[in-house]
Amino acid sequence: MDDAGELPKTYKGVVYDEPGKVSTKIVDLDMPEPGAGEVLINLTHSGVCHSDLGVMTNRWAGLPAPTQPGQVGGHEGVGKIVKMGPGTESAAVKVGDRVGIKWISAICGSCPACLAGHDGVCFNQKVSGYYTPGTFQQYVLGPANYVTPIPESLPSDAAAPMLCAGVTVYSALRKSSAKSGDWVVLLGAGGGLGHLATQIASRGMGMRVIGIDAGSKEELAKECGAEVFIDHTKGNAEEEVKKATGGLGAQAVLVLTAANAAYASGMGMLKFGGTLVCVGLPEGELKGIATAYPQFLVAKAQKIVGVAVGDRREAIETLEFAERGLVKTHFRTIKMDKLTETFEQMDRGELAGRVVLDLS
Amino acid sequence: MDDAGELPKTYKGVVYDEPGKVSTKIVDLDMPEPGAGEVLINLTHSGVCHSDLGVMTNRWAGLPAPTQPGQVGGHEGVGKIVKMGPGTESAAVKVGDRVGIKWISAICGSCPACLAGHDGVCFNQKVSGYYTPGTFQQYVLGPANYVTPIPESLPSDAAAPMLCAGVTVYSALRKSSAKSGDWVVLLGAGGGLGHLATQIASRGMGMRVIGIDAGSKEELAKECGAEVFIDHTKGNAEEEVKKATGGLGAQAVLVLTAANAAYASGMGMLKFGGTLVCVGLPEGELKGIATAYPQFLVAKAQKIVGVAVGDRREAIETLEFAERGLVKTHFRTIKMDKLTETFEQMDRGELAGRVVLDLS
Amino acid sequence: MDDAGELPKTYKGVVYDEPGKVSTKIVDLDMPEPGAGEVLINLTHSGVCHSDLGVMTNRWAGLPAPTQPGQVGGHEGVGKIVKMGPGTESAAVKVGDRVGIKWISAICGSCPACLAGHDGVCFNQKVSGYYTPGTFQQYVLGPANYVTPIPESLPSDAAAPMLCAGVTVYSALRKSSAKSGDWVVLLGAGGGLGHLATQIASRGMGMRVIGIDAGSKEELAKECGAEVFIDHTKGNAEEEVKKATGGLGAQAVLVLTAANAAYASGMGMLKFGGTLVCVGLPEGELKGIATAYPQFLVAKAQKIVGVAVGDRREAIETLEFAERGLVKTHFRTIKMDKLTETFEQMDRGELAGRVVLDLS
Amino acid sequence: MDDAGELPKTYKGVVYDEPGKVSTKIVDLDMPEPGAGEVLINLTHSGVCHSDLGVMTNRWAGLPAPTQPGQVGGHEGVGKIVKMGPGTESAAVKVGDRVGIKWISAICGSCPACLAGHDGVCFNQKVSGYYTPGTFQQYVLGPANYVTPIPESLPSDAAAPMLCAGVTVYSALRKSSAKSGDWVVLLGAGGGLGHLATQIASRGMGMRVIGIDAGSKEELAKECGAEVFIDHTKGNAEEEVKKATGGLGAQAVLVLTAANAAYASGMGMLKFGGTLVCVGLPEGELKGIATAYPQFLVAKAQKIVGVAVGDRREAIETLEFAERGLVKTHFRTIKMDKLTETFEQMDRGELAGRVVLDLS
Repeated sequence: MDDAGELPKTYKGVVYDEPGKVSTKIVDLDMPEPGAGEVLINLTHSGVCHSDLGVMTNRWAGLPAPTQPGQVGGHEGVGKIVKMGPGTESAAVKVGDRVGIKWISAICGSCPACLAGHDGVCFNQKVSGYYTPGTFQQYVLGPANYVTPIPESLPSDAAAPMLCAGVTVYSALRKSSAKSGDWVVLLGAGGGLGHLATQIASRGMGMRVIGIDAGSKEELAKECGAEVFIDHTKGNAEEEVKKATGGLGAQAVLVLTAANAAYASGMGMLKFGGTLVCVGLPEGELKGIATAYPQFLVAKAQKIVGVAVGDRREAIETLEFAERGLVKTHFRTIKMDKLTETFEQMDRGELAGRVVLDLS
Repeated sequence: MDDAGELPKTYKGVVYDEPGKVSTKIVDLDMPEPGAGEVLINLTHSGVCHSDLGVMTNRWAGLPAPTQPGQVGGHEGVGKIVKMGPGTESAAVKVGDRVGIKWISAICGSCPACLAGHDGVCFNQKVSGYYTPGTFQQYVLGPANYVTPIPESLPSDAAAPMLCAGVTVYSALRKSSAKSGDWVVLLGAGGGLGHLATQIASRGMGMRVIGIDAGSKEELAKECGAEVFIDHTKGNAEEEVKKATGGLGAQAVLVLTAANAAYASGMGMLKFGGTLVCVGLPEGELKGIATAYPQFLVAKAQKIVGVAVGDRREAIETLEFAERGLVKTHFRTIKMDKLTETFEQMDRGELAGRVVLDLS
Repeated sequence: MDDAGELPKTYKGVVYDEPGKVSTKIVDLDMPEPGAGEVLINLTHSGVCHSDLGVMTNRWAGLPAPTQPGQVGGHEGVGKIVKMGPGTESAAVKVGDRVGIKWISAICGSCPACLAGHDGVCFNQKVSGYYTPGTFQQYVLGPANYVTPIPESLPSDAAAPMLCAGVTVYSALRKSSAKSGDWVVLLGAGGGLGHLATQIASRGMGMRVIGIDAGSKEELAKECGAEVFIDHTKGNAEEEVKKATGGLGAQAVLVLTAANAAYASGMGMLKFGGTLVCVGLPEGELKGIATAYPQFLVAKAQKIVGVAVGDRREAIETLEFAERGLVKTHFRTIKMDKLTETFEQMDRGELAGRVVLDLS
Repeated sequence: MDDAGELPKTYKGVVYDEPGKVSTKIVDLDMPEPGAGEVLINLTHSGVCHSDLGVMTNRWAGLPAPTQPGQVGGHEGVGKIVKMGPGTESAAVKVGDRVGIKWISAICGSCPACLAGHDGVCFNQKVSGYYTPGTFQQYVLGPANYVTPIPESLPSDAAAPMLCAGVTVYSALRKSSAKSGDWVVLLGAGGGLGHLATQIASRGMGMRVIGIDAGSKEELAKECGAEVFIDHTKGNAEEEVKKATGGLGAQAVLVLTAANAAYASGMGMLKFGGTLVCVGLPEGELKGIATAYPQFLVAKAQKIVGVAVGDRREAIETLEFAERGLVKTHFRTIKMDKLTETFEQMDRGELAGRVVLDLS
């Protein structure tokens, strides 16, 4: 069970060498030793996510302090366990298991959020690639009871992006109060979150999807399972939603973009008793949802719900959908030496589709 | 079962003679005949509510059209059934039963809201005292399957005000997601809604109440069951709530006042996973809740919920609490000829406590 | 709006002429007049259900008294409204609308079950074809606010059987606590209830279905969407379920047959926290579920739930699934003069598939 | 933070020296060292529970193998943390904190039950006093993230019994579907579980309690908050329940005794939509609940639910009720040398009230 003999002393990883700028550097790192309750994972793949760019450039609003030079980034990693730390004898995973690291790499297990089963909002959560060395490296440590098992038939490169965007939208759909057969509106249906949400909602959860995005995304949204597509740059999206839903509006509206305008327009698309689900986070100055009118919320018995990254159980369920082929993402694979270039494209808004880092 | 032989041909009622102004007039009204599915009720008491003033003066925002001269107002009536219309043979009520009329006097029974069991937001609801002749009269018609049975040991004058303010706050507490043992903050704890909410929450539902209001209301709030009272005119109420709740914040915050400021301050008093409940309705221009930040809703997995007047079942449950003596309201009784004077006091903000109209 | 001028004075219907025996008779019936709150429907189709046989032969356990000679049977009727009774001015339906009559033809609207939104267990429910003249006739009365609207593109003959078996299994799936992506076991997957449940669960609600039945039903069950089929006449079904679900068992087991043995075996197929859903009703002497052991229920935190015929809203949702083509039933159409013969086949257990009566 | 220097090398504890018999022995034990993720607790009190007797005598049905000689028993311990093991730096507890050990002393944190937030049914749970050395000793080890914090103002001796019986009944009440204002029947209201359930339900959760037990328990049940008491040895308890609840029956019936008869009688006391909650475990041969008739469960839309020992969060909430003085238990305190005598009394059924072991 202990493969330590075969492990190299150092390995390759990518660090933020000049946090604040878009810049990464490949470095040699010392092999860490798994501590109490930890496992050591030999990563083969890591997704590259917009939030990594936010951490690297210090733009991410959640940062308690500037990112330090030498930080290993990344938070969507997949690989095999190669070594178990002390106190992991009764863990559910073992050496040789393929597991994943998510945005939240570790939780405390005893705060009010954890006790409520909502580990995704653990008060003492560790964010991978900021609080802990992330997944842009060949080896990483993770808690034996918090890493996510990867289903056998799901390839590692396909699994990586599911661990962040996939889990987030699945969690949002689950908490939206919409049930199978209900109409849901996805604002930003053709985007990184949206195209996954469209597939999971329609193929996995039996919901009826109205996708809203710029007209160029219509084909993608429909391929992903949207029954109705509305081009928000034309006409009145609110009225179109009403028309598609027999005049009633949708049971849930998920805001999957970062635009304040999307939040404001979403409220009017809801039916009585419906729920607006906040997912995408506007940047810049904090603004309340402009149409969160108490009068309307009361008259229509509506709700507004915030959904953070999903819980551990939701990660497992998302991967099950992926294993069954119900949700897929388009990605291309790059090597470590192309990471800076990839972040530059992302920063200029020119990156199409998802990128997965091949760490092997 | 048919007492019609004893009924007078006319009776007394109070109408809005000059809607737009604060003015009422006692008139003689012709005895109506109960139609299909209806019952005729001989009212003895009717609550006098701030919403009646809104209907009379055309200030109530929900009015689809100006109130017409000759409208009988009132929406908190209690009396005995004296006659049953055709098609009521299998109704749950019968001649002699004491029943109440609520804000919503009739529902359609087949719209999506009704099918979902939320008759309080029926798409085709009739508001008593505006759509239908209200409860400021000695006889009124109501649907046999929608009038609310009054528990035997609860006096009619005490029951009347429960049918509106009582039901509304009970419904809000039930939909707040707070359970027994949880902390709830009541913004406006000493007001018309608030003093009932404090009693129902603490004595009826086992919640721990933090009452917030102007300092002059402290005694009332504590008598009603508030465990902690915070004077919102002094210091930082948000910090006081955190302190009282062990640093976590409250599971639910109910906004029982009409102040936009209360909505804005309420969000910061919630714990992770907590719920802001909208009840009181700001007047004037529509404004979104200033602190309904998507970023915070997401990070703390919080909710905002709008709660309309309660459902039929909630009316019954509220009256059970009243019957058991767990919730009481202070009221004084007036005769019909004092109604204009009472509305004038209410309009000037000088009316203390609740007023019940004695119709006998 | 009133088409009464065109209505004939009499019309054809089928009655139970010798209740207790399998015998029906075509008779001429007088055209009824819709009472307060009622509509008159010109039926074109009625499903023929095993429960009708139970009522006719006095074998149905729920019968409070023997069925009377001359009773018009049937409880799955579809047709057009031709006349509205008094007090239906604000009803959601109007003359010309196509509507359906269900097992429960009328409710009281004010009992505790109705107030809870569970009209399917109304304390004062009227069963069509026993308490009220049923749907084996060309015209029938029904409450304006309780008849079920039929979606425009769904043919009447296809809609009829959905109103009973379809609604029942949909309601059971909804109340089973299983969510999309969860495994559900359907005991009797190839039967009248089962083949509909398989389609609705897999295609409509995103569940993963394990169908269990005699081996001859395998093809049908798989065509309907069962991912796994288990022949209960071979081997150990409980172990097969465990194997198919990664050792855990299913989130829900629906007992769709009337066999006491199915109830007993179902408990062992559940995962921790799972739910056994009672639907099919054993005939003969009352027997408790043999494996409802408190010790096991406690150790595995499991539930047993009874589900009656669905609520009104569930009927509407079931018809939406049918309209979208997600659930279909195999049926053949007969004329009134073949009804006795059909019941005889049913009584001998020789009737394959569903039969719909063409009333035109 | 490390007080290890002051710790003795050995300490006193009580072991089962002849498992199978009622016999205990005081022995000297070596001070253990907290492992990864563990804390060392200096216990001052431990409850003495009937389940301990079951473990000692090998009568407890859940035992996978006979109890071994030398096993330290006990599962309701309270004391102060004196030493933290490695990997506990970010734990919610620290040296000096007063904490408790429950029936389940440790969980895996990653099985399906743990992921669902139901640690009380963890697939890999360790039972204190059987799988791990229990609380009949002066020092015990426990997981840093699973021990239960004790509220500051709650004495340790009063807290101990809450950690088992208190948590169990609180969990059962929470999962019973009864809400504040609803009637609940407690079968065995005057017993060890029952008298705590009566207090928590009535004083803590706002439920209306019908206590059922032998007549001699009436005074105790009423003191604890039962609004109605029924002597099950006289008359027809089912009819009495109906009478007390206005003919409807109770929303929930908790079976808090181990009698098969209680399970059978409980079903008939439920209202439509009500829930039978299994808590007490019959000994001897497994028997299904005799009145778990599918026909009745269906017709009345009722549920049967099994509730295991409560979850971590429920333990915390139970202790909050105790801290607020809403639930108390009668106990007397003994020293270690009286433990065998106490178990002998318990075995003969002569032990009245609860016993707490003083370990100091």
